[in-house]
Amino acid sequence: MTFSVTILGSSSAFPTSNRFPSAQLVSVHERPYLVDCGEGTQTQLRKYGINIAKINHILITHLHGDHMFGIYGLISTMNMLGRTRDLNIYAPKELDAILADHLKYFGEGMTYKPVVHALNTTQSETIYENKHLIIKSLPLRHRVPTCGFLFKEKTPGLNIRKELIEKYNLSLRDIVRIKNGAHHTLESGEVIPNEKFTYLPYAPRSFAYCSDTIMSRYIIPIISEVDLLYHEATFCEDRHQLALERGHSTAMQAAQIAREANARQLVIGHYSSRYKELDQFLIEAQSVFSNSHLAEEGKVFEIPLQQEKPTPLNFYK
Amino acid sequence: MTFSVTILGSSSAFPTSNRFPSAQLVSVHERPYLVDCGEGTQTQLRKYGINIAKINHILITHLHGDHMFGIYGLISTMNMLGRTRDLNIYAPKELDAILADHLKYFGEGMTYKPVVHALNTTQSETIYENKHLIIKSLPLRHRVPTCGFLFKEKTPGLNIRKELIEKYNLSLRDIVRIKNGAHHTLESGEVIPNEKFTYLPYAPRSFAYCSDTIMSRYIIPIISEVDLLYHEATFCEDRHQLALERGHSTAMQAAQIAREANARQLVIGHYSSRYKELDQFLIEAQSVFSNSHLAEEGKVFEIPLQQEKPTPLNFYK
Repeated sequence: MTFSVTILGSSSAFPTSNRFPSAQLVSVHERPYLVDCGEGTQTQLRKYGINIAKINHILITHLHGDHMFGIYGLISTMNMLGRTRDLNIYAPKELDAILADHLKYFGEGMTYKPVVHALNTTQSETIYENKHLIIKSLPLRHRVPTCGFLFKEKTPGLNIRKELIEKYNLSLRDIVRIKNGAHHTLESGEVIPNEKFTYLPYAPRSFAYCSDTIMSRYIIPIISEVDLLYHEATFCEDRHQLALERGHSTAMQAAQIAREANARQLVIGHYSSRYKELDQFLIEAQSVFSNSHLAEEGKVFEIPLQQEKPTPLNFYK
Repeated sequence: MTFSVTILGSSSAFPTSNRFPSAQLVSVHERPYLVDCGEGTQTQLRKYGINIAKINHILITHLHGDHMFGIYGLISTMNMLGRTRDLNIYAPKELDAILADHLKYFGEGMTYKPVVHALNTTQSETIYENKHLIIKSLPLRHRVPTCGFLFKEKTPGLNIRKELIEKYNLSLRDIVRIKNGAHHTLESGEVIPNEKFTYLPYAPRSFAYCSDTIMSRYIIPIISEVDLLYHEATFCEDRHQLALERGHSTAMQAAQIAREANARQLVIGHYSSRYKELDQFLIEAQSVFSNSHLAEEGKVFEIPLQQEKPTPLNFYK
């Protein structure tokens, strides 16, 4: 039951010789979701052993080249791999026309269909869900329509305390009903509350991806209490004004968002090529939010499963 | 007076974790020419310390993604660098419409113009020349219209033997005339032949780029005696039939072309990702043409200047 984020690219628009433009691979319950797809993403996926064929969902925050020019090569490679399933791409709506133009020239012999799902970048909406996961958009404030993404594990089904199955001689039907949240009525007519039988096997985990954006407190209620927050930090505070003009954030601002949202952990990235070393970013972020980390190519941030222990039995006595 | 080729990418359509798709930087008399531009080319240019701003000419052999998907990012980066000069792109004619479509979405605020010069891929033509260099196209045989390129240094101006300037008391006007190829007439009426005064300072150098193509003997007369030949070798002979079906060559075929063209040196590349190691390519090529080498990212092949010595004076006595 994975929940992890692999950094594929940490640079802003100018790639450097060792930093790639934006891309991250989010793995939730063994399923991969690609967030942003800068030039070279397919090379990075291969480098870190990620199976390109298994990617069915690509999320693009905005239509700047450093967040999406890798999609052309990836679409082509998936075709060479013999893909037949639709490829779902969630992106600002213009991507549909962009890909249609592109495929006029490069779509010959395509064995599958890239399907663009247009994002509403002005309000938070559910854009995808399955049994385990819900993905919502996060409106961001950049120079062009942009949204981030919130990945949230769904609340898992209730577990039943094994020792009570025997004690109350529960039938299979009883167990199913209790797992679905029902109280249990004994033959005597006494009602045993559901909470006595059940507990959550683990706490739902969450990850928010916020890039590119100026510091925007509008997102705080949506990302509140997130386990892992990726927030862009294109500049440090020495270029505070430039960050604002270019629609970006500083490391300190990213950390302020993490603190105000009460995030558990912060990862910053999207570094300007003006900075040769990254220490300044980390020192600045940690001065505001101690659990801050640097995005670097190949780093994996895992959100561990927090197993919830059954409440002690004597609580109910 | 450089004449060198830097390998930026050596893979075929599937990039591997350590090989990039096709791109090479040809430097002639300190001017850079980019040949092919697969995804990630701009990162490779930076990695090998090549100044992106100085590139004014990009040559694209054919419109398969692994030879041109890097052009979108490069065009964008050049714009961020504040470029104002036209960027000349030599490519099959459809690239003009492809870039026009692309720039509808990504061309806002462009400070310069990418100009596409349509290539005739069916016959060899001069596509560019300056004082020192001429570039010709080479028709190749692939699955789509494709041409390679021949870079040929122009024959340099004649040098004059310094010791004869004094001996014959030559005026500046005499020197200019002799350097332009004239004979010299003494006051006595005796004519001294130009060859006695002059010599070529160096032998013109040449490089041919042949990718992608099946083995095609049509190119041999055009690349005859070339100093450095790059010829694709997507497969080894174990996949001879597959090479033919896919419009590619084997290492042995590349070497046969080098031998029949009497090239001085061969570089092979465009390796299929089916081959994890490259030894087989090299052994196979060298079995036919001993001066064969592997293209690998970052390798630089220099064609040294062959200084021609003045013919000994007593030759004329």
